[in-house]
Amino acid sequence: MHIDILTLFPEMFEGVLNASILKRAQERNAFSYQTTNFREYTLNKHNKVDDYPYGGGAGLVLSPQPIFDAVEAVKGKTDTPPRVVLMCPQGEPYNQRKAEDFSYEEHLIIICGHYEGFDERIRQELVTDEVSIGDYVLTGGELGAMVVVDSVVRLLPGVLGNESSAPRDSFSSGLLEHPHYTRPAEFRGAQVPDVLLSGNHAKIDEWRHYQSLKRTYERRPDLLLNRALSDKEKAWIQAWKDEE
Amino acid sequence: MHIDILTLFPEMFEGVLNASILKRAQERNAFSYQTTNFREYTLNKHNKVDDYPYGGGAGLVLSPQPIFDAVEAVKGKTDTPPRVVLMCPQGEPYNQRKAEDFSYEEHLIIICGHYEGFDERIRQELVTDEVSIGDYVLTGGELGAMVVVDSVVRLLPGVLGNESSAPRDSFSSGLLEHPHYTRPAEFRGAQVPDVLLSGNHAKIDEWRHYQSLKRTYERRPDLLLNRALSDKEKAWIQAWKDEE
Repeated sequence: MHIDILTLFPEMFEGVLNASILKRAQERNAFSYQTTNFREYTLNKHNKVDDYPYGGGAGLVLSPQPIFDAVEAVKGKTDTPPRVVLMCPQGEPYNQRKAEDFSYEEHLIIICGHYEGFDERIRQELVTDEVSIGDYVLTGGELGAMVVVDSVVRLLPGVLGNESSAPRDSFSSGLLEHPHYTRPAEFRGAQVPDVLLSGNHAKIDEWRHYQSLKRTYERRPDLLLNRALSDKEKAWIQAWKDEE
Repeated sequence: MHIDILTLFPEMFEGVLNASILKRAQERNAFSYQTTNFREYTLNKHNKVDDYPYGGGAGLVLSPQPIFDAVEAVKGKTDTPPRVVLMCPQGEPYNQRKAEDFSYEEHLIIICGHYEGFDERIRQELVTDEVSIGDYVLTGGELGAMVVVDSVVRLLPGVLGNESSAPRDSFSSGLLEHPHYTRPAEFRGAQVPDVLLSGNHAKIDEWRHYQSLKRTYERRPDLLLNRALSDKEKAWIQAWKDEE
């Protein structure tokens, strides 16, 4: 997979995309990336990327021309047409399903703005996907682009390898993870639950399943709405409801 | 505000936290940060930060000792006790309200894991807030920590200054932003809507309000659930429902 990132702050990306797993993914040729500063595509003499909004109001708006030209310059690297992703608060909420969707592409182009709006024609004519990483305001789209790259690249074949924690991941099972404990068995007076020291794997699995469901029920009941529940799970939930 | 970040990958942060608005916020003394590699606080001879999980299973678990000791080493920098924030998928979904809440603190300590679970005693004894930036799986908590820092620091007094786009922000009004347009009035055949060129500010305000509500209704109806609607807004929504 190749990922092009269009940004006014290319220097923000190197430390994140060249560390740890993303670094190794590049060494294994699972993915490559290039940052492009779309200011280099401006045609005006002051290299301005933005302008006042029609209709008035505070703030500036990113002009269509530099972004259109930058996207066209990085297109055509693969046989299949790229997905063109706009990071913006008005976008579809990004989630694990969307990460999996993107992970099947050969080429992603990600456009980042910086504390300004985009001219609407960028949305209408150029972009295939608008995504938002969460309901909070950031100074720019760069962190969102890094979140997309990280979450997509870790899904590519050969990237996580043997260290894969995929089976334990929150969200992939539809439940939050159960508690984990490691040595020492007592730390500052706090003990590891007896069941985990018992060696009884059926009991351990049941305890983990129970804790996972309980944590999800208490913290993220929204995740249970679209999930098929087993009879055992229904009984546990009924017992918690009775307690309340 | 001072922010301490506990991480195994301190080199990931510099490019992001020393760019653009976050750089200027440090120059203006609105905030300072320090990264601490908690591997330096290990007491075992191989500087191991993790160990096998009690009860078996794939993956390793971050041990309590290095993280407890690292938190204690960075505590005490301010008169008020710090909030100790754990980035994890099981956390409370992070949102703008939480960013505002954190923005009133003098000192935040943010703990990042990296593709591993945390020993549960870290959660129980050390942490005041567990937060998740979204329902996707990342290779570590570092990007989440950057999201928290960026969203909080931009709210601190004096950071955004005159460029403040705060009044236009999505989420702060409870609606997604309306479309923006800038010059040229025609770009590759796509026109700016006439109303924005009309100079009639009452009409422009009404158009923007309508578009903002419509975009929210179409893309994020969940944001309307807890919002008080005016009579005009109710009539617009009814008309869209009738069209469907």
